Amino acid sequence: MEINTDKYKNITRNLEREMINLNPIQRGGILPTESKKIIYEYWDGYSVCDYCSGRLDRIETPPINEFLEDMSKFLGMDITRPTHGARESKYAVMNSICKEGDYVVLDGNAHYTSYVAIERAKLNYEKTDIGEYPTFRVIPESYAEKIDMLEDSKKNIGLILLTHVDGNYGNVADVEKVGKIAKSKGYPFLLNCAYSAGRMPIDGKKLNVDFIAASGHKSMAASGPCGLLSINKKYEDEVLETSKVNVVKELQMLGCTSRGIPILSLMASFERLIERVKKWDLELEKTRKVVNELEPLGFKQIGEKPRNHDIIRFETPILDEIAEKDKRRGFFFYEELKRRGLGGIRRGVTKEFKMSVYGLTNTQVDYVINSMKTIINELR
Amino acid sequence: MEINTDKYKNITRNLEREMINLNPIQRGGILPTESKKIIYEYWDGYSVCDYCSGRLDRIETPPINEFLEDMSKFLGMDITRPTHGARESKYAVMNSICKEGDYVVLDGNAHYTSYVAIERAKLNYEKTDIGEYPTFRVIPESYAEKIDMLEDSKKNIGLILLTHVDGNYGNVADVEKVGKIAKSKGYPFLLNCAYSAGRMPIDGKKLNVDFIAASGHKSMAASGPCGLLSINKKYEDEVLETSKVNVVKELQMLGCTSRGIPILSLMASFERLIERVKKWDLELEKTRKVVNELEPLGFKQIGEKPRNHDIIRFETPILDEIAEKDKRRGFFFYEELKRRGLGGIRRGVTKEFKMSVYGLTNTQVDYVINSMKTIINELR
Repeated sequence: MEINTDKYKNITRNLEREMINLNPIQRGGILPTESKKIIYEYWDGYSVCDYCSGRLDRIETPPINEFLEDMSKFLGMDITRPTHGARESKYAVMNSICKEGDYVVLDGNAHYTSYVAIERAKLNYEKTDIGEYPTFRVIPESYAEKIDMLEDSKKNIGLILLTHVDGNYGNVADVEKVGKIAKSKGYPFLLNCAYSAGRMPIDGKKLNVDFIAASGHKSMAASGPCGLLSINKKYEDEVLETSKVNVVKELQMLGCTSRGIPILSLMASFERLIERVKKWDLELEKTRKVVNELEPLGFKQIGEKPRNHDIIRFETPILDEIAEKDKRRGFFFYEELKRRGLGGIRRGVTKEFKMSVYGLTNTQVDYVINSMKTIINELR
Repeated sequence: MEINTDKYKNITRNLEREMINLNPIQRGGILPTESKKIIYEYWDGYSVCDYCSGRLDRIETPPINEFLEDMSKFLGMDITRPTHGARESKYAVMNSICKEGDYVVLDGNAHYTSYVAIERAKLNYEKTDIGEYPTFRVIPESYAEKIDMLEDSKKNIGLILLTHVDGNYGNVADVEKVGKIAKSKGYPFLLNCAYSAGRMPIDGKKLNVDFIAASGHKSMAASGPCGLLSINKKYEDEVLETSKVNVVKELQMLGCTSRGIPILSLMASFERLIERVKKWDLELEKTRKVVNELEPLGFKQIGEKPRNHDIIRFETPILDEIAEKDKRRGFFFYEELKRRGLGGIRRGVTKEFKMSVYGLTNTQVDYVINSMKTIINELR
């Protein structure tokens, strides 16, 4: 057996330490110092199980059980469990409350993981309509139409799924409207909060939500992989059904899920999350400023306007123009950003790109704006 | 919303730093320094995705793809994927290759997570016989009997599962024999290596194994939660089936699994794993020494003898006797061990306990033995 392990030595990552990272999937998952400290304590495998008496969500030292209760309050839900991430939360719901072949009605902006969870759970789906270019808004009324259509053709509907904030355009969906439709039609309603819970305030009760799938690493300042599943008490017996062989263990959790540092990092970040969702307006101000300052350069913001989320998607014909004549071709933008300490924008893109300034200081935001202005103005 | 976050501040764990930890579920998951270093680099959420082009197992920076190929060599298998742990690996196999209602034939020493995975996948099970007290060995021939019985009653068998090393007695099962039975009967064969892969040498090919479920946090010096699923190429299409909606994403992985530091800690520990499985004999020597030295005190080792694994289960009537007269009752042993810097033995146990000296130095092992001797001799 010849294995050269040299390549696994001294692996480093400079993006977060030396650069301002503009990648929307990473900005919400940057750890505060408190969470880094807890990682020192719990990095060994199965360390969280020191005082376990049979189930992760009931551990008192460290206080995981209280944390989950507090998280339920934070999200306006009844019961919360740790999971490995939002996709795993969605799958746990689908696999428990739906029967093989059932239909999931979901928004046209849904994340790929919603489809993968549907397929893994052997379900079908019906996609609702979204609005046209350049806004691509979820159309709540389309849920009613699709539900009627499926009912008319005698299809069994197992779940209504809505992506609270989609990752393509960063549009914030009208949850209350979809929730009302789901409720009036009598179907369970899951909200995918991977891009919202931990960034913006959420009240599941007020929104008529039965399930919330949240992502620790995407939006809750936690290490990957981890997430939460918050449910309405009404579905406790189905979703949290326990084993017949080992009666304390929950089937959909396979006993215990996030048995290690990711859930602890989320716990340590909780205070910051409570603080930061209160300042969501300030994040939107920064985001809108970026859009207002960069559009005159020849960028066009896609998705709803003004921004109600920090994800910004720009169409960038001006980058395309510059790439035509720059000897670095499409890579000039990445290179120029990198030279200025800016990272997280996909290498080689010229048609369009996504970015976020979530959590950056105003000074950093101004630096980002001015750097992009300088790059474009010098090279155009 | 009233949430007091004080309890989530300054959470510490002293067990690993200030004590010698004798907990068998934790000794194999202690991180070497290299792995702690990589955690500093990758603790932010989704950091592993910096250079992802669509799938975790194909990421080149850090070299996850090469790592998985090397892991296949290490385990003697064809294809390896990261998972969240051994239970998640087992479930992925069951959910993909079995049909609802199929039977899983598994050993009588199987871990609870095998049952939970079976129930979650909506399968049935048939448990094979194990030998009598005090050895409780898995009886390979029982697999043939149970398979015949199920076939005679027209039950569909979906999978043969064997626990390589069980967590109750630390018995090492005769994999080759069970593998031959599975092969001759034509059924797929899964080996649960949660307590073996990363501790002792394993060659899946030689053992006639189709699937290996491994645990990073239990036996591979990795942070929790993470594990591996290694498969025989024959089952690639079924187990690693990709989505019809997003054709690059594997259904059973829900796209990507261990998207964070756990898989990186496993990668950084890999060199140590290669070294340590070569020294498995030395671990057995230490383990056998503990048994030989402590049995004369009034401890009785349960499970196969001499030990072929580091898990030691002692029946301890002598502790029971002492507890009768000690004013601390059953807690005296825990307290006395703690006073000597020894932890990881369940608090309050007197009838029996489990321990492991895996990875400890000879000096530490002697200290453990002498401490236990002193406690018993002083208090008996």
